[in-house]
Amino acid sequence: MKIQHCDTILRAAWLVTQDNDRRVIENAGVAIADGRVLAAGPWDEISSQYQGKELLPGRELLLMPGLINAHTHAPMTLFRGLADDLPLMEWLHDYVFPVEQKHTPETVRLGALLACAEMTRFGVTAFCDMHFMAAHVAEAAEQSGLRAMLGEALFGFPNPSYQTFDQGFAKAEALCETYRDHPRITPTVAPHAVYTTTPEMLERTWSLAESSNTLWVIHLAETTTETAECIEKFGARPLAYLDSIGCIGPRTMLAHGVDLNTEEMDRLAQAGATVVHCPKSNMKLASGVAPVPEMSRRGVQTALGTDGAASNNTLGMFTEMRFAALLHKAHTLDATVMDAQSVLDMATCDGARALGMTAGAGTIAPGAPADIIALDLTRPNLRPCYNPISHAVYAAEGGEVCLTMVDGEVLYKDGAFTRIDYPALLNEVRGLGAWVRQQSGRNA
Amino acid sequence: MKIQHCDTILRAAWLVTQDNDRRVIENAGVAIADGRVLAAGPWDEISSQYQGKELLPGRELLLMPGLINAHTHAPMTLFRGLADDLPLMEWLHDYVFPVEQKHTPETVRLGALLACAEMTRFGVTAFCDMHFMAAHVAEAAEQSGLRAMLGEALFGFPNPSYQTFDQGFAKAEALCETYRDHPRITPTVAPHAVYTTTPEMLERTWSLAESSNTLWVIHLAETTTETAECIEKFGARPLAYLDSIGCIGPRTMLAHGVDLNTEEMDRLAQAGATVVHCPKSNMKLASGVAPVPEMSRRGVQTALGTDGAASNNTLGMFTEMRFAALLHKAHTLDATVMDAQSVLDMATCDGARALGMTAGAGTIAPGAPADIIALDLTRPNLRPCYNPISHAVYAAEGGEVCLTMVDGEVLYKDGAFTRIDYPALLNEVRGLGAWVRQQSGRNA
Repeated sequence: MKIQHCDTILRAAWLVTQDNDRRVIENAGVAIADGRVLAAGPWDEISSQYQGKELLPGRELLLMPGLINAHTHAPMTLFRGLADDLPLMEWLHDYVFPVEQKHTPETVRLGALLACAEMTRFGVTAFCDMHFMAAHVAEAAEQSGLRAMLGEALFGFPNPSYQTFDQGFAKAEALCETYRDHPRITPTVAPHAVYTTTPEMLERTWSLAESSNTLWVIHLAETTTETAECIEKFGARPLAYLDSIGCIGPRTMLAHGVDLNTEEMDRLAQAGATVVHCPKSNMKLASGVAPVPEMSRRGVQTALGTDGAASNNTLGMFTEMRFAALLHKAHTLDATVMDAQSVLDMATCDGARALGMTAGAGTIAPGAPADIIALDLTRPNLRPCYNPISHAVYAAEGGEVCLTMVDGEVLYKDGAFTRIDYPALLNEVRGLGAWVRQQSGRNA
Repeated sequence: MKIQHCDTILRAAWLVTQDNDRRVIENAGVAIADGRVLAAGPWDEISSQYQGKELLPGRELLLMPGLINAHTHAPMTLFRGLADDLPLMEWLHDYVFPVEQKHTPETVRLGALLACAEMTRFGVTAFCDMHFMAAHVAEAAEQSGLRAMLGEALFGFPNPSYQTFDQGFAKAEALCETYRDHPRITPTVAPHAVYTTTPEMLERTWSLAESSNTLWVIHLAETTTETAECIEKFGARPLAYLDSIGCIGPRTMLAHGVDLNTEEMDRLAQAGATVVHCPKSNMKLASGVAPVPEMSRRGVQTALGTDGAASNNTLGMFTEMRFAALLHKAHTLDATVMDAQSVLDMATCDGARALGMTAGAGTIAPGAPADIIALDLTRPNLRPCYNPISHAVYAAEGGEVCLTMVDGEVLYKDGAFTRIDYPALLNEVRGLGAWVRQQSGRNA
């Protein structure tokens, strides 16, 4: 048999492919060339057919697709732990909004870079972000090497990024233009919420998403309060309101979807829209429990996200998966819902599809982008291993990640970042922490 | 001022004392001598008054009391991930009980040692365990150096440890005798549950707990099914049944306490009994949500536990704290319940009190046993830091632990165990994994 050359070979004690057959292979290998998966299969086959540099040889690894964080606000890492144990509106108005108003392009960039470091460290290879000054989030994402879907958060009131909606809209247009053909950064159009915009604003953002062919991302149905306010202001529940102005379709991505009824779920399924489930944030802010098992039964496309670090308080997708799996078991009193495989799907292949990523993304299969992570299986909490999908969802904490690669490029390996000067970033974040304390009046 | 000598000094960027005033000190130090905390305070004071060997100098650390896992079944690590996404009774009868019947003293010891390694690695310094062949759990705990409260699990049917209840009872008595005055191992008396014992058996165990002056630990009110069966069999709800045979008092420690009504909570508060909350296990098995906020309001003493690794699937108390904090916010739709401080109390000082540990245990205050852990604050998920209690509950994953000490003795530091030969243990567990697969018929 002819030996094929490749760039990189990885050997796995357990390989979770997430391919169409959801193959899990013990003692497996993956061959990578030109940033893509060339082959994935039993080690004997891979090692006899492919020749390339073996990464992390001699290690006992769990290989799996990188996790996809489908909803976050990267710069909010700077406010991690600033205020906890508060309801959404108090948390937002009394703590988050005031200090967010002090953001500068540099604080946005550094907060986002810290977020990228955290996600890279804990096995996230792609994320979908909404924040103002998104160009500076993009700068951080580009430096980090992570795959990112980014939108300028559009509000109907002034913020550090713009004074008027028109100015904000111009920034959103510019972002769409700048990243039209970028290999890893994909623009989105991201109006903040129905309660921070007008119908006219939403219609304009929808047109921009259509003309730029991007996702249209919005927070929706996060709380019953939002629903009540929407009915009072616009005479309809949030989803019906969006529908009435033509903002429901396959490019619609709704973060949260807590307060959705079954008719609304059917409408979303029929439209091919996506709901991003953010269990930890919804739990922490006591927003309610998104009916994800029911959405799945009704065919709504779902993905999984951490939301921002101020309401989570981490961007780790391993613990997010665990919360998704366990929350619904407790809520429905049915231990069989949200099984490990379904939850892993949300965080990999399903998330990739929802985000409109390239074919094969979120899987380790021939032709897929080599967005791959490795977990060190010698950690005590991963011993023994009977089922690596169970371990990914129920046992891994995230710190076991010893390799994160995107497009076959190593971004993190055994404690070291390849693109981020982490000690320098730590220093800068140290200074920013003191600045945030001053701005927020905390410890003043 | 006279300089005092001590054995060890630790410097902290943030010190969480959990003392009576719940002091949190930035830039702090702890002086340790003869296994106890000599002093804890601002670094200037400690460094000018005490001289000793500084551990982990130059590091940016969060120091806090070691976490207390108040309910687990250590040997169950061997069944981690063997069966998931199943309801309690199916999981127990079809998967756990059959394979548990194959246990030998050696598999019990090795499973427990793996559990000790995992807990040590993730910052647990004390645990309360219930398992048959508890003498072999004790052997593992003793080797690991962790503080452990251990009881022979007593069932009314045969198991690998004993054929008759009398034989099991004799083992329980022997354990009480052997560990009467051990510095780190404390015996408990541990009947399994009301549905696996008779009233006569429970009365005998209670007498033994009284004569040996130990805790009396039982699974109680885990599901509504248990309640219904208890009513059918004994004519009373589980708590009333225990009360009727005289088994409620300060030495009573009830694991789970999911199906408790307000009268039962008042009875427990009045009796000074403890409920150990196991949120992840209850969620995973869809057992229900223990009414912990209501228990706290009514003065019931509570602690926190992971339950066994087969239904969790880790023994990490950092994520357990997070589940405790977030589950009840979602369940009560009140973001202010189970705030970070209360949850940390359950996992430290309150847990210590519930377990009858020595004065000061679960705190870092003068005279307390030096059961201390350090977290590496340079991890991206712990940056920046405004409130280390928030970080402990909402941001730490457990892998940040870089030092675990009990009685001032280092058990784990920067990846290395001092008492456990971890590579050898990994090898033995690898073999056991293959054995479990055979026994369970999985992949057969």
